[in-house]
Amino acid sequence: MTRLTPANNLPPVKLLNLDHVAIAVNDLDAAIDGYRQRYNTEPLYRETVESQGVEEAMIPVGGSFIQLVQPLGDETPVGRFLSKNGEGLHHVAFAVVSIEAALEHLKAQGARLVDTEPRQGGRGARIAFVHPDDLGGTLIELVELAGG
Amino acid sequence: MTRLTPANNLPPVKLLNLDHVAIAVNDLDAAIDGYRQRYNTEPLYRETVESQGVEEAMIPVGGSFIQLVQPLGDETPVGRFLSKNGEGLHHVAFAVVSIEAALEHLKAQGARLVDTEPRQGGRGARIAFVHPDDLGGTLIELVELAGG
Repeated sequence: MTRLTPANNLPPVKLLNLDHVAIAVNDLDAAIDGYRQRYNTEPLYRETVESQGVEEAMIPVGGSFIQLVQPLGDETPVGRFLSKNGEGLHHVAFAVVSIEAALEHLKAQGARLVDTEPRQGGRGARIAFVHPDDLGGTLIELVELAGG
Repeated sequence: MTRLTPANNLPPVKLLNLDHVAIAVNDLDAAIDGYRQRYNTEPLYRETVESQGVEEAMIPVGGSFIQLVQPLGDETPVGRFLSKNGEGLHHVAFAVVSIEAALEHLKAQGARLVDTEPRQGGRGARIAFVHPDDLGGTLIELVELAGG
């Protein structure tokens, strides 16, 4: 399979799916158990993503996931979020066809980005975050899933 | 069509889908325009839900929605949220088969509920909220969509 460079005829950004909603938690095992008890769910993936300073579990709900994230330490972005806010909704992630095309469009618009280039996320995906001050006070993650 | 009462053979709760993620905003028109500019989206529904004190717009993203909610006044739940936190992620909503069955299960577990009985939400849906202190600091809405 040859991975082509982003085609010029792609729309500048096309949200394919609401990939996941992330919830910051203090205790990943307790949160997984809570979802199991309350909502009859089971995680499909669980992994440590060192580059983001988290251990995360992905709970499938329809065609999306609830992502439970526990920080690896207090001095990580999610650790600081928990110290300030306590447990709760952290970010929302949209799947896109091409993360380069999406970032190019956002840069052209002057959007406030956390990541100006894609980086590695969980599940082998390429990701980039848009700053909450950009739109609706919401930390938004763009995800290009592995294998397109 | 006869609507049957919740069958005893239903699982106590089954999350069908991540129906929507709600974002509290100060200016609904500006937020819709921001999503249009940044993410090439268009709302599918827009309505005032007096019982919840909001005007809301539903933006389809894959099989889910981003729900943008603007309070009808400062002394509404979303108005107070905005005064305290500013714009940002407000709640997450799961579609369920039977909201009665889901509430019955949650009550049996001693879950902390905002609504012990279903009430009317947008899109003709029947909804109930679970208190953020129940699990993961997250305000969770259960939605039984009109027509099942």
